Amino acid sequence: MITFSRRDVLAGAAFAASALSASRSLAAAPFASMQASTLYRYNIGSYELTALSDGLWERPIDDKFVRNADPADVRKAMTDAFLPADKLPIPFTALLVNTGSKLVLIDTGSGGQIAATAGTFNANLAAAGVTPAQIDIILISHFHPDHINGIKTKDDERYFPNAEIKVAQAEWDFWMDESLPGRAAPEIKGYVLNARRIFRNIADGVTRFSPGAELAPGISAIGAAGHTPGHSAFAVASGNDSVLVLSDTSNHPKLFVRHPEWQPVLDMDGEAAVATRKKLLDRAASDRMLVQGYHFPFPGSGHIVRSGSGFELVPVEWQPL
Amino acid sequence: MITFSRRDVLAGAAFAASALSASRSLAAAPFASMQASTLYRYNIGSYELTALSDGLWERPIDDKFVRNADPADVRKAMTDAFLPADKLPIPFTALLVNTGSKLVLIDTGSGGQIAATAGTFNANLAAAGVTPAQIDIILISHFHPDHINGIKTKDDERYFPNAEIKVAQAEWDFWMDESLPGRAAPEIKGYVLNARRIFRNIADGVTRFSPGAELAPGISAIGAAGHTPGHSAFAVASGNDSVLVLSDTSNHPKLFVRHPEWQPVLDMDGEAAVATRKKLLDRAASDRMLVQGYHFPFPGSGHIVRSGSGFELVPVEWQPL
Repeated sequence: MITFSRRDVLAGAAFAASALSASRSLAAAPFASMQASTLYRYNIGSYELTALSDGLWERPIDDKFVRNADPADVRKAMTDAFLPADKLPIPFTALLVNTGSKLVLIDTGSGGQIAATAGTFNANLAAAGVTPAQIDIILISHFHPDHINGIKTKDDERYFPNAEIKVAQAEWDFWMDESLPGRAAPEIKGYVLNARRIFRNIADGVTRFSPGAELAPGISAIGAAGHTPGHSAFAVASGNDSVLVLSDTSNHPKLFVRHPEWQPVLDMDGEAAVATRKKLLDRAASDRMLVQGYHFPFPGSGHIVRSGSGFELVPVEWQPL
Repeated sequence: MITFSRRDVLAGAAFAASALSASRSLAAAPFASMQASTLYRYNIGSYELTALSDGLWERPIDDKFVRNADPADVRKAMTDAFLPADKLPIPFTALLVNTGSKLVLIDTGSGGQIAATAGTFNANLAAAGVTPAQIDIILISHFHPDHINGIKTKDDERYFPNAEIKVAQAEWDFWMDESLPGRAAPEIKGYVLNARRIFRNIADGVTRFSPGAELAPGISAIGAAGHTPGHSAFAVASGNDSVLVLSDTSNHPKLFVRHPEWQPVLDMDGEAAVATRKKLLDRAASDRMLVQGYHFPFPGSGHIVRSGSGFELVPVEWQPL
């Protein structure tokens, strides 16, 4: 066996580069220079679910990103997970549920209005063979822009013309309170104005639900406040299968499933979010439930196991058929 | 917060099912009833790599699948990984490397000749925008059917008309030895006949390499015998990036990366395979090298970390762009 350390391998690369520069030929196929369509189908009972990537947000990480953790511990958790230490790649993945009678979309992506690295939802929905007009029901987990902005185009037009939009009453009451813009803390002011832009002139098409409500056949709301005041998880069940849609109960699992007690500044009520996170992760682990996380690496689904003082996500293994 | 245990959720499903049976309407989009195209692109320096799924093989697991492990331990490892306890889903993932000047394919999939759950390579290659005629070089890790059968159609025609095929000298010498069919052990007889079917009448288009050989710009062979007599890994390097293509150095990582000392019956020389596996995994962990495994869950790439008495695969996080 020859040596094959990283150093040896890279020495080979240098050799190859010099050989390459001497070559004028091009491969018959050009570089694609883009990722393939990023969608993943799976079944829950008789339902067909499709995880649809909207890309990701590379969140710069400063020492204040986690309110109650030593920044060195946060950087170590990222390095241990082979993530860059200075910016966290936070994936966005919406979930389409075809119950057979209804097409239900859970969260809508960023609408291409947040980051250059996000906004692929529309292309992936098209790759799934579904048009926006076919969506019957949209469930919104909470009013942060990466979940609601896809409801509208940049020109403030409704993107899903036939969909009934369902949101938690508590979420609506918080963000749409007429007095909020005048009193909101500076760090959420942008979110407040954005939520009002999205919903104010389509309020007639929005219905409100409470925790426990049946939102579509087999799909029910689970109160999961903390991340935002009306943050919701969802249970999707058909036959003997189910998936617990965690929404933003945990942001990136390498940080917050592993360390559920950590409070990212993204969680509006840090302590309530920790309590919700621990409760849902603990139940998912005890019941060996399949979970889907909006900010989990694509396709975003897996199982939760206990590990040390926290948990780990065991990602699903891609089923090719 | 309402209850959301698996039992509660499934009770909701039963309710939904009764509601559903009363409904006659259908969703606007039918079930796709198939997985989306399963390909994943990533860059190594200036090279563009594409992992192309060929599906998987559901290998029934009996008590003899791992020669030197307690069957109960094997079943526990599978259950802990949320895999079925009685059959192991073994993914097949080929790797296309576009160096800019050459299109290099590492292994070819099953050619649809092995299992109903495999054979999607051709469709995924097409989805990648590449035709078989565009492939310049094919590197073969070893002569098991899930790696070589894609070289030919079921009708014994060459599938990649313009590709130079490169195989390890030791692998060729073992399988193509004229005396082997008469003396091969019963358990490999099918593999022997299959390898001869694939290669015998195209031997002119096959060149042989030795460990350490440069096979294409930036791509070199690494001797990794044990799984088969001439089993090869590959290093792909460009600029400051590299990936170690492990081929079948380890079968499913939840069993054999976790327990590198376990000897699956698939490894022809169990002890040599264990030594190779430990050596490559140890080096990958020490150097934090990106690795790609033919039988790792799609897209098959990740990093190796030490864990307990073995290792763990930390899968790459899907980059959507």
